[in-house]
Amino acid sequence: MREMVIVGAAETKFGRSESSYRELAVEAGRKAMEDAGVDPGRIESLVLGSFSPGTFVKQEHVAPLVASELGLDHVPSTRTENACASGATAVMGGLMQIGAGMHDVVLVVGVEKMTATPTGEATSILAEAADWESESKAGLTFPGVYALMARAYMHRYGKDRSILDAVAVKAHGNGAGNPYAQFQKPITVEDVRGSLMIADPLTLYDCSPISDGAAAIVLASKDVAGEFKRSGIPFLGWGQASDALALHERDEITALPAAQRAGKRAYDMAGVGPQDVSFAEVHDCFTIAEIIATEDLGFFEPGTGGDAAVSGRTGRDGPIPINPSGGLKAKGHPVGASGVGQIVESVFQLRGEAEGRQVDGVEYALTHNVGGSGATCVVTILGKGE
Amino acid sequence: MREMVIVGAAETKFGRSESSYRELAVEAGRKAMEDAGVDPGRIESLVLGSFSPGTFVKQEHVAPLVASELGLDHVPSTRTENACASGATAVMGGLMQIGAGMHDVVLVVGVEKMTATPTGEATSILAEAADWESESKAGLTFPGVYALMARAYMHRYGKDRSILDAVAVKAHGNGAGNPYAQFQKPITVEDVRGSLMIADPLTLYDCSPISDGAAAIVLASKDVAGEFKRSGIPFLGWGQASDALALHERDEITALPAAQRAGKRAYDMAGVGPQDVSFAEVHDCFTIAEIIATEDLGFFEPGTGGDAAVSGRTGRDGPIPINPSGGLKAKGHPVGASGVGQIVESVFQLRGEAEGRQVDGVEYALTHNVGGSGATCVVTILGKGE
Repeated sequence: MREMVIVGAAETKFGRSESSYRELAVEAGRKAMEDAGVDPGRIESLVLGSFSPGTFVKQEHVAPLVASELGLDHVPSTRTENACASGATAVMGGLMQIGAGMHDVVLVVGVEKMTATPTGEATSILAEAADWESESKAGLTFPGVYALMARAYMHRYGKDRSILDAVAVKAHGNGAGNPYAQFQKPITVEDVRGSLMIADPLTLYDCSPISDGAAAIVLASKDVAGEFKRSGIPFLGWGQASDALALHERDEITALPAAQRAGKRAYDMAGVGPQDVSFAEVHDCFTIAEIIATEDLGFFEPGTGGDAAVSGRTGRDGPIPINPSGGLKAKGHPVGASGVGQIVESVFQLRGEAEGRQVDGVEYALTHNVGGSGATCVVTILGKGE
Repeated sequence: MREMVIVGAAETKFGRSESSYRELAVEAGRKAMEDAGVDPGRIESLVLGSFSPGTFVKQEHVAPLVASELGLDHVPSTRTENACASGATAVMGGLMQIGAGMHDVVLVVGVEKMTATPTGEATSILAEAADWESESKAGLTFPGVYALMARAYMHRYGKDRSILDAVAVKAHGNGAGNPYAQFQKPITVEDVRGSLMIADPLTLYDCSPISDGAAAIVLASKDVAGEFKRSGIPFLGWGQASDALALHERDEITALPAAQRAGKRAYDMAGVGPQDVSFAEVHDCFTIAEIIATEDLGFFEPGTGGDAAVSGRTGRDGPIPINPSGGLKAKGHPVGASGVGQIVESVFQLRGEAEGRQVDGVEYALTHNVGGSGATCVVTILGKGE
């Protein structure tokens, strides 16, 4: 396949925004094109990742809407949806278009506008990413799904909630250094434990927030990378895998088999292993999800990811920093934007431009974007470029 | 790019179904794999086209759901959404994955379950494919949008509604020969004119129905086409283009510029012209849409597509049969399935297996799938194969 690079990257601040869905998408898309030094006329295709604009803002068919608002006259535009992995799935779509030789320069935008919807209703909308017939219809929303996973994990490995506390405190500490983060204030273990119980054992600070936001990258074939202002950040490997939507249909719930498979494919393609990864942006929709992710991706043995967080090994100065951006937990989780935002953060880190949260000596970045409770997973590995 | 062929094709009957969303998708997907003589284990990826399952059946994240129900264990699965062109957009996604060399065999499914939703509510959901801020919020639903286009067309070219009558009568006549069609009964001009006025000048028989249904194809690289039971139907060309969602943002509304551009790309890629096309399945969501489509695709000069329908030139025995399947109008319009269904019908015709509606001497088939009032258009051209 042709080699592919990221020549532009940008995002809006995540959080509660006054901007509309289309304004968020346009802000990120325009800034990514500016970052690349590229005119809208050079963009050959738009792929847009978004979860549920039909329910959140009563607007489907968002790809051509955003394309026309961005002045991308008449290029093919396509939306992808894979729940909370809609963003990384859109990136996969862009990679395929360039890989096939169909296009040379593709804009990928991830976006969601969620805070205009009351929180309870938003939680119901999010539950549509679980299996309606066996989960959501019975009242099982995502905090409950991940609480089941947390309970199973803690039981299986004999852990208490201190492993969750460690992840939450680290996330908010990192978010404090990220100007794009929804939450930019450090918290303590007492804050986590004292916060509202959402779904036992998960408290409010174990859960990622409802957010607005957008993120965008300009993807290009390496053949044309010389046209752009910024040197390209190479896509070294990627993997996507699926699983059943419903927890009860899986063999185990203390790991995400789809993440393991997607990770293996990405590592194999990139020719690197977990030991080579400088830092990772993983899908910590809940604190337990980050712990499981670090095990699925091979950074730690099963049952030891929580201890690693407690001992500071996943801190920004640790051997394998996890979510230096603050992650979904503190940076925020505007669903369709999250996976693209992980890649944008990785580009900033690989360029050495992640002010306030820069990881030292970055060579390889890994992103891990999950849909539902693990029915979709996309892993990408980026390198430093020239 | 690698050459690509369709090695399996199938669809459910369109119409009001007792089957659920997932049952419809599984039926079409399974039948397409059976048609190809392929085991689920050989499928490397699923792309699923669906418009708004989140609102129609409270289920997003449908791609891995359908993948797991079909026994496609763990393959990457992705949903695409581009309003009523969601189906053909999914086909584009599959083509890119094979074109990039990422996969050799991809299952594409289009599906929608609409009839469990009350008609008024379904019309509101469909209106989310128009521009919410400038159209749908003000009460403009799609019958209204296309009525504006019909009025503009009739005024500009000095036509009366007999051109619409001709399209409706032909559609239902063709549907009568199609066992997959929602409506299998011929109608008369009097039926059309006597039916309920929906949005002047469009009566009930000018409008495609609310439908359930699914359609699926197995796409393969030509390199591996020998593995399958059926000889492959080649994809000779395709084109996708976009436009602004809102009618008032376009230069004209008596043609669809996106359809013209998508058609030109497809013709150029296939190396054929309108004169070579044996028949076309076009997006007749309303009778006026078929007339405009036949002009946008170069079969007739602007302003003459309606006359061509009246004079029988688009009939099954005419020089350029349009919608021998009955089209969206009579075959039905389960949104996400429609674009895939056009391709399935084309495969049946190219194989000479379109019993009851077979067009004579088919060499090239063209499909034309539109999202919204023309903000997305995908055109494909298929050949006869070996």
